[in-house]
Amino acid sequence: MTQTKGYAAQSPTSDLTPWTFERREVGPHDVQIDILFCGVCHSDLHQIRNEWFPGIFPMVPGHEIVGRISRVGDHVKKFQVGQLAGVGCMVDSCQVCENCRAGEEQYCVEGNTQTYNNLGRDGQPTYGGYSTTIVVREEFVVSVPENLDLAAVAPLLCAGITTYSPLKYWGVGQGHKLAVVGLGGLGHMGVKWGVAFGADVTVLSTSPSKEADAKALGAHHFVVTKDEEQLKAVQGSFDYILDTVAADHDLPMYLSLLKTNGTHILVGAPPKPLEVPAFALIPGRKSVSGSTIGGIQETQEMLDFAAEHNIVSDIELINIQDITQAYERMVKGDVRYRFVIDTASL
Amino acid sequence: MTQTKGYAAQSPTSDLTPWTFERREVGPHDVQIDILFCGVCHSDLHQIRNEWFPGIFPMVPGHEIVGRISRVGDHVKKFQVGQLAGVGCMVDSCQVCENCRAGEEQYCVEGNTQTYNNLGRDGQPTYGGYSTTIVVREEFVVSVPENLDLAAVAPLLCAGITTYSPLKYWGVGQGHKLAVVGLGGLGHMGVKWGVAFGADVTVLSTSPSKEADAKALGAHHFVVTKDEEQLKAVQGSFDYILDTVAADHDLPMYLSLLKTNGTHILVGAPPKPLEVPAFALIPGRKSVSGSTIGGIQETQEMLDFAAEHNIVSDIELINIQDITQAYERMVKGDVRYRFVIDTASL
Repeated sequence: MTQTKGYAAQSPTSDLTPWTFERREVGPHDVQIDILFCGVCHSDLHQIRNEWFPGIFPMVPGHEIVGRISRVGDHVKKFQVGQLAGVGCMVDSCQVCENCRAGEEQYCVEGNTQTYNNLGRDGQPTYGGYSTTIVVREEFVVSVPENLDLAAVAPLLCAGITTYSPLKYWGVGQGHKLAVVGLGGLGHMGVKWGVAFGADVTVLSTSPSKEADAKALGAHHFVVTKDEEQLKAVQGSFDYILDTVAADHDLPMYLSLLKTNGTHILVGAPPKPLEVPAFALIPGRKSVSGSTIGGIQETQEMLDFAAEHNIVSDIELINIQDITQAYERMVKGDVRYRFVIDTASL
Repeated sequence: MTQTKGYAAQSPTSDLTPWTFERREVGPHDVQIDILFCGVCHSDLHQIRNEWFPGIFPMVPGHEIVGRISRVGDHVKKFQVGQLAGVGCMVDSCQVCENCRAGEEQYCVEGNTQTYNNLGRDGQPTYGGYSTTIVVREEFVVSVPENLDLAAVAPLLCAGITTYSPLKYWGVGQGHKLAVVGLGGLGHMGVKWGVAFGADVTVLSTSPSKEADAKALGAHHFVVTKDEEQLKAVQGSFDYILDTVAADHDLPMYLSLLKTNGTHILVGAPPKPLEVPAFALIPGRKSVSGSTIGGIQETQEMLDFAAEHNIVSDIELINIQDITQAYERMVKGDVRYRFVIDTASL
């Protein structure tokens, strides 16, 4: 067992505070990682506040983990001590269902094991990356390229793969017009991938003030959706809309911007059901779809692509002691575009 | 001009009554068809009652038309007098947009011209198939095979193509589990196509009394959705759900029956927006999609497929004088599965 320092919420109403706990022994197929950086995802806050479902407390959040391998089990084949490694939203799955066999553990029929706020297949609670070390079976560990800014790589493990995977699944690229809604942690990565894949990328925003940011990220166009003239000009024009907004919003308005056969991809989860009139889909053979993270193999592919194209997240590095203030700013959208914890501060 | 006998609604509150009107002269690219049979679609009733949008009155409904060609324009190439012909929901489109050029006139960017209750590109109202004759430009006329029961072919022009086209577009066939919701005019054709394409077909119904009907149509399985045990047994099991229901219904329940990557295809249009929780789509990369009729080329392909596999609609032949009573029975779902008007009764 390894004594581990972390920050935990002791209950859904308490702030994160220092908490020491034990990681399991490194088993024959396990990898132990000394965590260097951990990204701060909006879902961390949702979960410590019990906003989605009753959580397991104490809760150590964090599923955008980058670190260096400090120990490997006897049967570990893919990794060696000293290598850089990453862990995302999952640390286990059944490994035998149709989806796991297809490398899509995120859709494990039994349900995958989440990196925190979940019970592992050993029945023990999982604790996330707001901590100094983590032990994970090797199948759920990815290699992190040495040439990238490590702190800025961390958000790729959730925000990155959540936007990379659907664009790959739907084959978004050259010849496609892609709109991205919501310029936060997910949205800013959606813009970067879309541009890198060769799509013609438009950022849709309610706020004209985001234009410079959108263009700086590489977006080719910017549309203020509250401006009727601008909105009219893009009616029926997009092949895909990548929708990263987790607040309630007007889906039919976005559907009207899709071309025939267009797909609106939800990666953000608004709390209330979306209202979809059948007549917003039928006359243009349009689709509303959802997607979550990506498989382990695809996460590795994304990191390799990131290394090749020098793509990382735009981040603001913080000490763990500043997490509560960071959450407050995140809720207001006051971050460009992801907070990342320097775990040396733990 | 050709004097034509028809049945028309003079206003949104009046029953259909006899009405004589004139069809346009047969132009160089036109085909005149003496109508033999016309199917009765639920949308006929929606439109004469102004339930979707304000209609053009007098209104002669009917867009499931089978007849024999009585005259062709000088430049008509595809058709000769004496041939059997069909006309569906469209009689014109721009013919130059991306979708028209791809043979998908149903998604014409300008909007296609509907067979009735629409203004043609000449600015004149269109009148449908509850009439003795119709004049249509040749591009919107299809050949009807001689070997099929002609009355039972008529519903293929709307109910048939509306279900054939999405199954073709999404490539539904061998190795797929297809569920069909709603065993009416559309649904019964969905079952027949699904079986013919090699899919494993299940009918989902609220009513146990439909089982014998579903099996008689060729369905392999039948599930009563109000039976919790039966519903539980098919959770996460379908690749596609073809949803023909035009009344409000519980979409999340159906989405739970889809496999990972499954698609719920709406071809019926409930009046109220459907409520779609993001969490019903995201964790299984599921989609809700819509589809409407099919292109002219695809409609011809469907008729040729129908001829080869001896597939027609199950119908109840009526005289035009019985149309009001037929509407009453249709609203109650009391028809197996489509009324067809014998226009000899006009």
